[in-house]
Amino acid sequence: MKIVLALGGNALQSNPKDASPQAQLLTCKETAKSIIELIREGHTVVVVHGNGPQVGQILNTVESGHRFNESNILFPFDVCGAFSQGYIGYHLQNAIEEELKRFGVKKSVGTIVTQVVVDKDDPGFQNPTKPIGSFYSEEDALKLEQEQGYVMKEDAGRGFRRTVASPKPIDVIEKDIIKTLIDAGVIVISCGGGGIPVIVENDSIKGVAAVIDKDFAAEKLAEIIDADVLLILTAVDKVFINYNKPEEKALDVLNIEEVERYISENQFAPGSMLPKVEACKKFVECGKDKIAIIASLSSAKAALKGTSGTRFINER
Amino acid sequence: MKIVLALGGNALQSNPKDASPQAQLLTCKETAKSIIELIREGHTVVVVHGNGPQVGQILNTVESGHRFNESNILFPFDVCGAFSQGYIGYHLQNAIEEELKRFGVKKSVGTIVTQVVVDKDDPGFQNPTKPIGSFYSEEDALKLEQEQGYVMKEDAGRGFRRTVASPKPIDVIEKDIIKTLIDAGVIVISCGGGGIPVIVENDSIKGVAAVIDKDFAAEKLAEIIDADVLLILTAVDKVFINYNKPEEKALDVLNIEEVERYISENQFAPGSMLPKVEACKKFVECGKDKIAIIASLSSAKAALKGTSGTRFINER
Repeated sequence: MKIVLALGGNALQSNPKDASPQAQLLTCKETAKSIIELIREGHTVVVVHGNGPQVGQILNTVESGHRFNESNILFPFDVCGAFSQGYIGYHLQNAIEEELKRFGVKKSVGTIVTQVVVDKDDPGFQNPTKPIGSFYSEEDALKLEQEQGYVMKEDAGRGFRRTVASPKPIDVIEKDIIKTLIDAGVIVISCGGGGIPVIVENDSIKGVAAVIDKDFAAEKLAEIIDADVLLILTAVDKVFINYNKPEEKALDVLNIEEVERYISENQFAPGSMLPKVEACKKFVECGKDKIAIIASLSSAKAALKGTSGTRFINER
Repeated sequence: MKIVLALGGNALQSNPKDASPQAQLLTCKETAKSIIELIREGHTVVVVHGNGPQVGQILNTVESGHRFNESNILFPFDVCGAFSQGYIGYHLQNAIEEELKRFGVKKSVGTIVTQVVVDKDDPGFQNPTKPIGSFYSEEDALKLEQEQGYVMKEDAGRGFRRTVASPKPIDVIEKDIIKTLIDAGVIVISCGGGGIPVIVENDSIKGVAAVIDKDFAAEKLAEIIDADVLLILTAVDKVFINYNKPEEKALDVLNIEEVERYISENQFAPGSMLPKVEACKKFVECGKDKIAIIASLSSAKAALKGTSGTRFINER
């Protein structure tokens, strides 16, 4: 089967106390083992990964570096996203390549730097909700609003942070390259961090400061390449309703009517399980045979066989 | 013809007074125009770019960010290289894609994050020569040597800098992907900054702190993909002998015997024209019909027609 694999933060930096690149590479090597299992089962795998912690680390470094010495470049946020695609792509492809060698699998793996198109009229741009980077005092925040045109918002009493839009992905600029490589049997890593967000007008392709949800980007890519399965890997084994309540219940299979009902009941946390569930719903709505699964990284193989994870199906 | 195009610093950041990403993107748009000229002539183009200024800017930011706040990650140098591949790749593919749209050329362009293999026994590792990053006091330099294992060297009376090896490239990990894309007519950007240097031992692929000369990486890639032409674009129109002397002479064509003689006469500046000339010599030695050219960015098209640049031929 042709699978788009959406890797969450825990697949890249599993130890919340160690965000070092050295620790990330070790985690990627573990993640690579799960991916190679799918490859060895004969599946075609396209990897989309998040970049929340990494782009935050990069932005903190960029902002701190500029505060330390104003001659250091204040790299714009779209460039920070490009940094993170190079960084995480390098670690993932290095780790997967090693596993391919170890098992003698004759396949290639590589990362495509990816621009993902968003709509300039996306409602997200009217109401930025995604805080990024360092905390600032009110005074400094005001200065950044005036000098850099940032939108600064107070964040839970901890200070002011820059806040950007989280628009929906509508296309992938590099889709033909991704398709070519998939057809050639390559394990493609793309749309990292949801992709570098760009707005297309006539011949212009312009990067913007925004965060595209990586699960929505993975869903869009799965549509574009006509994947069979959207497999979203995260830290939990299944989707729950009544989460952390006495009547908590793990879900094995969800049809579209159930998904709609649970969403209307606010069963899923915004910014966490909700976008994953919405992405799965959107994907299965693309065709009768489409399957979407939310599962834990370690049970990816079992999830494809139907013995783990929560499976979304195109039924009512 | 199948051409590996090696882009020098001036093709990415042309204004020495403005190293901003905004200025870089504008320069990339100019560079894209020269590249599209070659595409519209029917040539196949693979782009290799340098990253000297950019990786220096990134490293300064990383080091400053860490000095400002020790909780900011001191990203290792191989990761800084990966950052730069994402950054420059994004700008180049964005600019080239815009030009393709403008001319209605139905082609794709994309960047492959690239690991380039070096020999762990490369003599370069015994004698690091490439200074990178910020200047430090002798005391801080000593501390970095002890704590981080860096090699710190005094740099022309300006302070101490970290110094890394500049080993020769021997292979490209992602070569099969690059070949697949070339065969599919894609404009490939790869081996950025000479590639992320890695050492391969058994199943292990390990990133190292080193700088691979981008002209040597371009030459190696040109060998691997069996290119017809290695076209090194730089700030000057031709290669000179007796440069800046009364008897200065621009060279139109160079055979191997002449190259060897001029190199032995120290006609070419190490770290500048010498590696370009050596890369050209190495490439034409690969086959009777191989051509290497050193030319200016703006005269790339003329250089391929033989009316500009310095052409290296496999004759004695």
